[in-house]
Amino acid sequence: MNALTALSHLVPQINQREVPAALIDALKARFGANCSTALVVREQHGRDESSFEAPPPAAVVFAEKTQDVSDAVKLAAQYKVPVIPFGVGSSLEGHLLAVQGGISIDVSRMNAVLAINAEDLTVTVQPGVTRKQLNEAVKSTGLFFPIDPGADASIGGMSATRASGTNAVRYGTMRENVLALEVVTADGSVIRTGTRARKSSAGYDLTRLMVGSEGTLGVITEVTVKLYPLPEAISAAICSFPSIEAAVRTTIQIIQLGVPIARVELIDHNTVRMVNAHSKLQLREEPLLLMEFHGSPTGVKEQAELVQEIASDHGGNAFEWASTPEERTRLWTARHNAYFAAVQSKPGCRVISTDTCVPISRLADCLLDSVREADDSGIPYFLVGHVGDGNFHFGYLLDPAQPQERIAAERLNHDLVSRALRLEGTCTGEHGVGLHKMDFLVTEAGVGAVDMMRTIKRALDPHNIMNPGKIFSV
Amino acid sequence: MNALTALSHLVPQINQREVPAALIDALKARFGANCSTALVVREQHGRDESSFEAPPPAAVVFAEKTQDVSDAVKLAAQYKVPVIPFGVGSSLEGHLLAVQGGISIDVSRMNAVLAINAEDLTVTVQPGVTRKQLNEAVKSTGLFFPIDPGADASIGGMSATRASGTNAVRYGTMRENVLALEVVTADGSVIRTGTRARKSSAGYDLTRLMVGSEGTLGVITEVTVKLYPLPEAISAAICSFPSIEAAVRTTIQIIQLGVPIARVELIDHNTVRMVNAHSKLQLREEPLLLMEFHGSPTGVKEQAELVQEIASDHGGNAFEWASTPEERTRLWTARHNAYFAAVQSKPGCRVISTDTCVPISRLADCLLDSVREADDSGIPYFLVGHVGDGNFHFGYLLDPAQPQERIAAERLNHDLVSRALRLEGTCTGEHGVGLHKMDFLVTEAGVGAVDMMRTIKRALDPHNIMNPGKIFSV
Repeated sequence: MNALTALSHLVPQINQREVPAALIDALKARFGANCSTALVVREQHGRDESSFEAPPPAAVVFAEKTQDVSDAVKLAAQYKVPVIPFGVGSSLEGHLLAVQGGISIDVSRMNAVLAINAEDLTVTVQPGVTRKQLNEAVKSTGLFFPIDPGADASIGGMSATRASGTNAVRYGTMRENVLALEVVTADGSVIRTGTRARKSSAGYDLTRLMVGSEGTLGVITEVTVKLYPLPEAISAAICSFPSIEAAVRTTIQIIQLGVPIARVELIDHNTVRMVNAHSKLQLREEPLLLMEFHGSPTGVKEQAELVQEIASDHGGNAFEWASTPEERTRLWTARHNAYFAAVQSKPGCRVISTDTCVPISRLADCLLDSVREADDSGIPYFLVGHVGDGNFHFGYLLDPAQPQERIAAERLNHDLVSRALRLEGTCTGEHGVGLHKMDFLVTEAGVGAVDMMRTIKRALDPHNIMNPGKIFSV
Repeated sequence: MNALTALSHLVPQINQREVPAALIDALKARFGANCSTALVVREQHGRDESSFEAPPPAAVVFAEKTQDVSDAVKLAAQYKVPVIPFGVGSSLEGHLLAVQGGISIDVSRMNAVLAINAEDLTVTVQPGVTRKQLNEAVKSTGLFFPIDPGADASIGGMSATRASGTNAVRYGTMRENVLALEVVTADGSVIRTGTRARKSSAGYDLTRLMVGSEGTLGVITEVTVKLYPLPEAISAAICSFPSIEAAVRTTIQIIQLGVPIARVELIDHNTVRMVNAHSKLQLREEPLLLMEFHGSPTGVKEQAELVQEIASDHGGNAFEWASTPEERTRLWTARHNAYFAAVQSKPGCRVISTDTCVPISRLADCLLDSVREADDSGIPYFLVGHVGDGNFHFGYLLDPAQPQERIAAERLNHDLVSRALRLEGTCTGEHGVGLHKMDFLVTEAGVGAVDMMRTIKRALDPHNIMNPGKIFSV
């Protein structure tokens, strides 16, 4: 791959459509102060946690209810102007960038918890509710919402990107946990998908078509998700390993034996070092697994004993246990601060992050080759993984003043994702395609399947106004 | 509802399109003896386990590989003639009927297990593999495929109807367990959806769009599903209750407490009586729950103790336990033979079966009112339910010579499903829409959502040749 090809991944295709003044006037007339054209507001809504850049949207509408979203989409549709839904802005792949211009619809004020049905283990929320807010709201019921992508993302955004994170190995992803949605479609009409029944064979699975569609098929205005009883007992452990391979082989065996582990996270020695420096910890600077067990007291004990046995077969040692919430929080600090610790280790850096997922039997091969390549490149990086699912992230730390570092990092990313695809994996386990993985999606799914996605998109959004330019070109 | 309105549910809309002789000639030229126009073969492929009737398809193609399916669809597409995929014919809602004419593509000879990836807990099969065959094939790996809809259905058919059954409360449905598909689309091209990675955020979830699409978007030619480690310990129990309500309240509490029960099946006292007569058993003729617990020996013991305690609070008694496979088989006889026992109890009868699913907190209300109505009608019925999911089935036993019985049964069905929808449930938990639930789907999902399904259908199948006339009218 030459430098130019590599660079083609770096710059999103900017093809800004005109936003007529008449639309802005109409939005201001309808929304008053809830429609802003202030540059600072537009800029805040025109970027996310990715390293992509594009001109900001022409206006930001702050929606307070479904009708607001519907009206904003109807006005945009009238002028064939793109609309981009905005939750908290924590996307990692450029989902929020106005690469074709248009307006941003900020749903963060739609943050009401609408119905807690504790007896059914479901909760219905507006899309701007964040996962921490949701868990706070249901705390008194003895239930919790397990999906934890790291960021305190909005439930709407998590639905739109099919998010998951640390607990997915046991509780599934947004794919498995969203039961029903309300969606504003491309013509501004409002539909409902799914019901609160836990299973259904009633027609096309529009819920799961919308989950992961990254705002390209509609704006999510209401989400019903599953809740789970808080485990009677929770125990967490940290364990160091002589090599990444040993940690990964341990994980593979845990999964293959069917241990219902709730979390199993890999942190490589690089990242442990960064975390020690950042959080003043004294963790052994070796690859480690962070694990959590949920169940009855005896169940948790059984799982823990079995896992200790497996780990010790692979040279895992120095198990440190935590069963009170405070001790667990301390142990998980390493994982939760990994990103910030890495960024702080190279002041002023930008991060190119990757996200692939492979069948677990391929995990060691995929990871070890990618570690070797990253080490050879000389580019500092961190490596963390939800390894129980075969999902992991590298974050390459770049000096923005050195464009060749970006090219080198994109090459690492390219080689890593290509390797994951060869190993029957996916180009994104949980971050989404956004602007970053469009080429990889074609490699992964094939031209025919991407054409099918495009056909669906064209049929449901004939003027291509719903977050255009993401997932695939239309 | 008057008798005529009720009757409109009974007769599928027959609108047979012409099948040109040139197509039959072309199919015979391409497939030789694997294309049959013998009436007996066509009739066998023109019905299913539903009570609907329609003229048989014009020809049956026995596909032996994906290319056969692709070629048959291409020829059908050329003449704009419907194609109806056929697995083992166990559909309950008329999915296999050639209501618009056309040809049947029988995939039962595509019954190879293509790849067992035991270390990844996945298996890839051709669509004609049945669930029992699949479990036989993976037995030596210590893994199993949990989805059990009762019938020894084909994996392709189970995918197409989003099937589930007794184990879904713990292991999910086909929605959660299909990882990847190969599909022949309406123009005869072949696409792949998904990968063997356990999670992915890569583009639209075409896998789950196809799962449950009832053959209306493509013919499934390959399926990759998840497997699970065989539990170290399995224990089954049967428990009688003084009332259906007591059994249901017990179930609700089991679920709300998060007991990871693997199966919890309700059989009402009517059905127990039929089963006793049919299988020469001496079960107490009271409503009963059949339960199964999977886990470690101590885990299973813990679950069982907790469940016994809950059941006893609701008057549940006469727990009978089974932990050897032979004892479990004997206990499960009651459940597995329920359908045949019911049919035998009224010789010559036909069965109208229903299938709804509600949030579990609504289950008692929904069931009890429906039992009352069925009792009042005087029509014999059986009642079984995967009650852990809020899913249950009534089967009304009709004398085919008495049309008014059918009208009365359809009225019961109508009232029951309407009640389930009012209680935030779905019109079909696992059987699919087929011909039977098309009106209910509109009530459940709303005109807008059904229009979205229709728009997708039209975009992906512009000549409406893929199993037309099912799910919705196009």
